[in-house]
Amino acid sequence: MRPVVDDDVAYFRSIGVVTELADERRRRDWMDLYGTDEVSWVARPSTTLHVSRVLAYCFEQGICVTPQAGNTGLVGGSVPLSHELILSLDRMNSVSSFDPLSGVVVCEAGCTLAALDDHVKAHGHTVPLDLGPRDQCQIGGNIATNAGGLRFCRWGSLHGSVVGLEVVLADKEGTVLDLGMAGLQKDNTGYDLKHLLIGSEGTLGVVTRCALKCPILFKSVQLAWIRCATFRDVLDALVRAKRVLGEILSAFECLDEESLRFARTVVDVDESRLWKASEVAGECFIVIIETRGSSAIHDREKLGDLLAQVGQPAGLCGSEDLQRDVWKLRTSVSAGLKKSGVTFKYDISLPVGTMDDMLDATRRRLQPLRDLQRLLVDHGAGEYARICWFGHMLDGNVHLNVSCQPAHEAEVRRLLEPWVYEEVTRRHGSISAEHGIGCMKAAALAMTKDRPVMDLMRQVKALLDPKGIMNPGKLFASLPTVGHRMVNTPPEK
Amino acid sequence: MRPVVDDDVAYFRSIGVVTELADERRRRDWMDLYGTDEVSWVARPSTTLHVSRVLAYCFEQGICVTPQAGNTGLVGGSVPLSHELILSLDRMNSVSSFDPLSGVVVCEAGCTLAALDDHVKAHGHTVPLDLGPRDQCQIGGNIATNAGGLRFCRWGSLHGSVVGLEVVLADKEGTVLDLGMAGLQKDNTGYDLKHLLIGSEGTLGVVTRCALKCPILFKSVQLAWIRCATFRDVLDALVRAKRVLGEILSAFECLDEESLRFARTVVDVDESRLWKASEVAGECFIVIIETRGSSAIHDREKLGDLLAQVGQPAGLCGSEDLQRDVWKLRTSVSAGLKKSGVTFKYDISLPVGTMDDMLDATRRRLQPLRDLQRLLVDHGAGEYARICWFGHMLDGNVHLNVSCQPAHEAEVRRLLEPWVYEEVTRRHGSISAEHGIGCMKAAALAMTKDRPVMDLMRQVKALLDPKGIMNPGKLFASLPTVGHRMVNTPPEK
Repeated sequence: MRPVVDDDVAYFRSIGVVTELADERRRRDWMDLYGTDEVSWVARPSTTLHVSRVLAYCFEQGICVTPQAGNTGLVGGSVPLSHELILSLDRMNSVSSFDPLSGVVVCEAGCTLAALDDHVKAHGHTVPLDLGPRDQCQIGGNIATNAGGLRFCRWGSLHGSVVGLEVVLADKEGTVLDLGMAGLQKDNTGYDLKHLLIGSEGTLGVVTRCALKCPILFKSVQLAWIRCATFRDVLDALVRAKRVLGEILSAFECLDEESLRFARTVVDVDESRLWKASEVAGECFIVIIETRGSSAIHDREKLGDLLAQVGQPAGLCGSEDLQRDVWKLRTSVSAGLKKSGVTFKYDISLPVGTMDDMLDATRRRLQPLRDLQRLLVDHGAGEYARICWFGHMLDGNVHLNVSCQPAHEAEVRRLLEPWVYEEVTRRHGSISAEHGIGCMKAAALAMTKDRPVMDLMRQVKALLDPKGIMNPGKLFASLPTVGHRMVNTPPEK
Repeated sequence: MRPVVDDDVAYFRSIGVVTELADERRRRDWMDLYGTDEVSWVARPSTTLHVSRVLAYCFEQGICVTPQAGNTGLVGGSVPLSHELILSLDRMNSVSSFDPLSGVVVCEAGCTLAALDDHVKAHGHTVPLDLGPRDQCQIGGNIATNAGGLRFCRWGSLHGSVVGLEVVLADKEGTVLDLGMAGLQKDNTGYDLKHLLIGSEGTLGVVTRCALKCPILFKSVQLAWIRCATFRDVLDALVRAKRVLGEILSAFECLDEESLRFARTVVDVDESRLWKASEVAGECFIVIIETRGSSAIHDREKLGDLLAQVGQPAGLCGSEDLQRDVWKLRTSVSAGLKKSGVTFKYDISLPVGTMDDMLDATRRRLQPLRDLQRLLVDHGAGEYARICWFGHMLDGNVHLNVSCQPAHEAEVRRLLEPWVYEEVTRRHGSISAEHGIGCMKAAALAMTKDRPVMDLMRQVKALLDPKGIMNPGKLFASLPTVGHRMVNTPPEK
């Protein structure tokens, strides 16, 4: 791989592609864990043809390319690791059409999730996913990483919602593929190739446009919380919620008390308006249940039925204000973690019933450190390393976090990795439910997949990206094609 | 391609695979349009290992294989066209597990849709698709053809519902791929290869097991009908239904009056219990609206609101009996067509708003025949060729049918093909919304796809099925790999 040189920049500019030196926000990920400190260039095309010409040029010249959308990912998938050209579609952010009969919106990949949602909201629809960084992340990045988020349990995976993609390949011609851009909901004409790109993390090609099916925007949004004393109570509430709320259930989030403590360090929410302190004290889990439906009266009635059944402290958030406060607590855990020290984040899929067991195993795993008193520093409540988790329970997806002080990072890492990945794999779980692999878990990926599946993945990579110039070092620990080997930059702090 | 000989049969039997001469129901499709009259063998493995050994043997020997599930397809995709070995998974029909917390069922591919639904129903869930031939079709075939059906608008595509597949490839080892069989709902670890198999019509490999996410079975199922005088009224009802019924809407089917006439020739439904004759007389469209929800009171209230708004003759089916009668009319149109003569069936996706226009164009296309009075025979109401359509309106999917007497088949075909395919393509529609390509539309496929997309499809075919032995003549008009060319059997009457 060769670096981008002045002649390349001149070429990109000559064909009309804005090309600039990349600043730190582009060179490194937002957690400041991955990226490069070398000189990097970013190309910002305005059209699909631009993208095609850039990729054809990079193919010919052997320049590696890292597509970058909002750069809000958590696994170092959208930053260069060395000399890669950053390809940003932020200038390609227009919405082409919206069909009110089908709810299908057609737009460029650089639209932010928030802007796209605003657009379809004006037509009484909503995008089928919602993420914390909705103002920064772009729909192309959401698709390339198969983003999950808060409403996965209601609208499902992007494999179900994306009905069409326009994709540019890094080959001799910079081939542009139209994979269903007519925006039809049903199309059984041959292999559905767009799914290869969904979740491919920029390693196969560049998504330039998409057609996305957007559900109706429901007028009634209700929110309730339940305080569960044990994990078994959480599972009980889950089963009841599915039965009683059925078609209106749109989120079932759970966070442990430690998560709540982290959130409190960064947000100022008057919790006394939500619950009595006694109701959320002691070891407990807070469950947040959201419903979306077309009749507020019906929905509140169903939610009331549920809360009456669970036999735990619970409450309905009667105002939009209170709803916002609850979500603020839920979505601030990560920021609280970031503030508090070094965090090891694991985005795990497991059969819901076995989540608690995984958490216990993690506690046991870290016990020796405590016993040795090595880490009995003045950290939080005096604990050696703080474990917290929160998750999308209906999806079987838990975010397990271990927080420690920088001085103890190496020791904690030694205990956790690759142990967590092995443990999850042994339990038939996934080491990445929704965050993807990026460079963070590239080395761990092969550990969790059968050899024939890894082989086929590499063959697909070689087929679509024959020179292996697309986002090297991501997904695969080493490049699948010979002559382009590279080693991951090991995660720095 | 060489035929199956006695030695092959002896080998299959020696490894424990039941192998028999195929009867006509296996050699030809149920419409009796496609298939072979030559001697054919069917292998009926009992295990994935069987399938693996059969495919490895066929790879080595150069024997072509046609996977066959319920053989209920409409495009000649599951029958041999010449000497292919038929591979039936009907002996692999057990359910392995069901997780009540996630609703994920794991089963073998030979389970019939009805049996699988019965299994999950016992746990309060339902399979996320429903098709007419639910008693015959098998889940492996549903997945291999990406079947749509009556409840697509509610639960979406199988690309969203299938969370895992076990697939056997036709290569040297008969490689078995585990593509998510742990049954996790979220798993972002690399390329999601299972989607290549969904809708691949047996041309890439054999689906032997699957993990399928099953939604809650709702207690309240309501049905209503609306008689719309014009297509514009149908669209109006569609928009209102989405707004008023929102999350409980589970089907919005439309059929024209000619469809109703065909249905009446094969079912005996006392329509006076449903509607007054005057309410469905004259040119009209019957809309059938189904809701599924968790509260009958709430659902009926919403449905009542809708019917009050539409301003057309309409009614609620107050009993299960009446619901059954309405569905009987809807699902008997095909049988009525089959009885009445030769039918040209087109399974079209179009933007909903433009469907009517396509129908008009078809009428105009057939007008010259009428003018020449060539076909003014005693057929139905004395018409030259009868056009009828019915469809899944929420999905933008219409089934357009042209019925004529055998004597006029050639003339009607000359007018309709490839005209229909060209016309649909020109309107950015799909020539196969849910039925697939099979051998029926294999020649038309290339017409509707861009060259680079066809090329990539062929490369994917060559990657997964290197010798091109899987279901030859289906999807591709000729085999993609050299040395294995074959020509489709032209459709016989």
